[in-house]
Amino acid sequence: MNNPWFTQPGTDEGPVLSSRIRLARNLRKYPFHQKLNASAAAGMVAEISGAVPSDFYKLDMQSLSEAEQKVFLEKHIVSPEFLRWDLPRGLMISNDQNVSVMLNEEDHVRIQSVRPGDALADALATANAVDDAIEATLEYAFHTEYGFLTACPTNTGTGLRASYMIHLPCLERTDKFKTLLPAISKFGITLRGIYGEGTESMGGIYQISNQTTLGKTEEEIIQVLQNMTRKVIEHEGHAREKMLTTHRADQENIIYRAYGVLAYSRKITTKEAMDLLSEVRLGYLYGLLDRPRPTKTIYQIMMEIQPGHLQRTAGREMDETERDYARAQYLREIFV
Amino acid sequence: MNNPWFTQPGTDEGPVLSSRIRLARNLRKYPFHQKLNASAAAGMVAEISGAVPSDFYKLDMQSLSEAEQKVFLEKHIVSPEFLRWDLPRGLMISNDQNVSVMLNEEDHVRIQSVRPGDALADALATANAVDDAIEATLEYAFHTEYGFLTACPTNTGTGLRASYMIHLPCLERTDKFKTLLPAISKFGITLRGIYGEGTESMGGIYQISNQTTLGKTEEEIIQVLQNMTRKVIEHEGHAREKMLTTHRADQENIIYRAYGVLAYSRKITTKEAMDLLSEVRLGYLYGLLDRPRPTKTIYQIMMEIQPGHLQRTAGREMDETERDYARAQYLREIFV
Repeated sequence: MNNPWFTQPGTDEGPVLSSRIRLARNLRKYPFHQKLNASAAAGMVAEISGAVPSDFYKLDMQSLSEAEQKVFLEKHIVSPEFLRWDLPRGLMISNDQNVSVMLNEEDHVRIQSVRPGDALADALATANAVDDAIEATLEYAFHTEYGFLTACPTNTGTGLRASYMIHLPCLERTDKFKTLLPAISKFGITLRGIYGEGTESMGGIYQISNQTTLGKTEEEIIQVLQNMTRKVIEHEGHAREKMLTTHRADQENIIYRAYGVLAYSRKITTKEAMDLLSEVRLGYLYGLLDRPRPTKTIYQIMMEIQPGHLQRTAGREMDETERDYARAQYLREIFV
Repeated sequence: MNNPWFTQPGTDEGPVLSSRIRLARNLRKYPFHQKLNASAAAGMVAEISGAVPSDFYKLDMQSLSEAEQKVFLEKHIVSPEFLRWDLPRGLMISNDQNVSVMLNEEDHVRIQSVRPGDALADALATANAVDDAIEATLEYAFHTEYGFLTACPTNTGTGLRASYMIHLPCLERTDKFKTLLPAISKFGITLRGIYGEGTESMGGIYQISNQTTLGKTEEEIIQVLQNMTRKVIEHEGHAREKMLTTHRADQENIIYRAYGVLAYSRKITTKEAMDLLSEVRLGYLYGLLDRPRPTKTIYQIMMEIQPGHLQRTAGREMDETERDYARAQYLREIFV
């Protein structure tokens, strides 16, 4: 299916690929997930489904193939925990693909909104609209002093996680990068590889997000995240300027070779392809690569070479080696 | 100048790129090079020049640019020693570029003949014709028991060195390769990298040649060389078959990636380019690479990316970095 849910918002216009808002909410009348049994979970999921605006499509998690589940994971629409969960769950996605709601993840409700580029305010407005719609018929667990109550205390307060997906191909190679993480974490901001903590960084793509929500307003959280993101992007810009001043020709060589390998390889791992795509994206962005741009964004291509996406496209399970061939073929069709 | 002397005989039809014969001769009336002074050397060079067939072009070594000298070195037409020599020297090349004569190298006369592919008999006949022409007017240092006398005893006897330039991209990666050298050396045959002893092997190209000439006839020397070369090529064939049976897809991946890097790199060293060209040659030869063949042979391209050739084409001296860029550009124009 050419489902828009399988496309990924993102731009090739600058370091910021996309903006994301996530709201964590729980219903007052149900226990938190630690204490929730199957029948209560089923009732809760049904109730929230009814409260979500009617233009949302409800996906039956049980009927999704493993590849399709992986696709949602690779797109950050669902969490690994959510897929492993054995109680009744639900996943609802708006037809315009901008918002999704996980029902009975760690919290009863997880609203996520993603927008291409730097558009956190838009993403927040969209998420808030869904939040308001649910709240219009159901009562959230809310404490006047603490704010929204959540299964994990780190989300208590606004229940808000705001994040940007950013591309830092030049900064990640510098020593500066190592000192940056402790510096921004003092402001409650964290920087992780594209697939979260503990996963290897790939393709120079990082998520920058707030770590805590308690005792802050939504506006404050977003303000601090934006300030820190601006700082990080400034550092990326400095690293890039320095690189283009002192090693422009070397960098062009790296970028063109990356293009050559993407255009010709017969077998390629996710990690290598991501790193080469990162170089090519840098090449397009800063005029270092004189080749036609693909019609898809590089970020979209980065998603589509992930294992789940590849298997969904093939319509079958593939082992790692088969995927490495399928990935190379997919890339050859794009970069010719 | 588009001089045919700057093209290099070679084929892309199989493992044997070219066949080479070298005859070492000295004139009876002049001392060997260890005892030769400048005026005697000048006289000797003049005398031999007169005896070489008149369709040979005489190059003035002093008037050749450093790049042109390097070109002859890269083509194995002259030796490094010959270029360093400060006594009068001479280099004569037939207009059909099949034979060259170094005057006053280690020996007074070094006749070399090169033919594309497996054509040692042709090369020998051509060299012998020049040898006969010189001998018709000048007397060689010849001993009825030892044969032709030479400056270095290893060349005494027939004064013949026969060699093939062969491409062993599959064999060189195997353990077999290491045991092969001692095995063939028992038969007085040696295998060296494209630029001789002490130089790193590049592009899977090797010279296989006889090491001694004393006590053997020309026919025996050539026979043993041909037998040993056939053995080596058989081993290359086994290694290739094994590789194509068990790792065909991996090998195709390597070959296509090599093509991609040759087609796109902006900067490339001689060594890397040679190794990638080796893969591409393998790809063309065994139908693993579905890309149009360049009009030049891969061996010719391998010569033209050498430092001297590149500088001669550019018409100026270039430092290593400049050459790496020029080499990449040259290759991009061939592989598109």
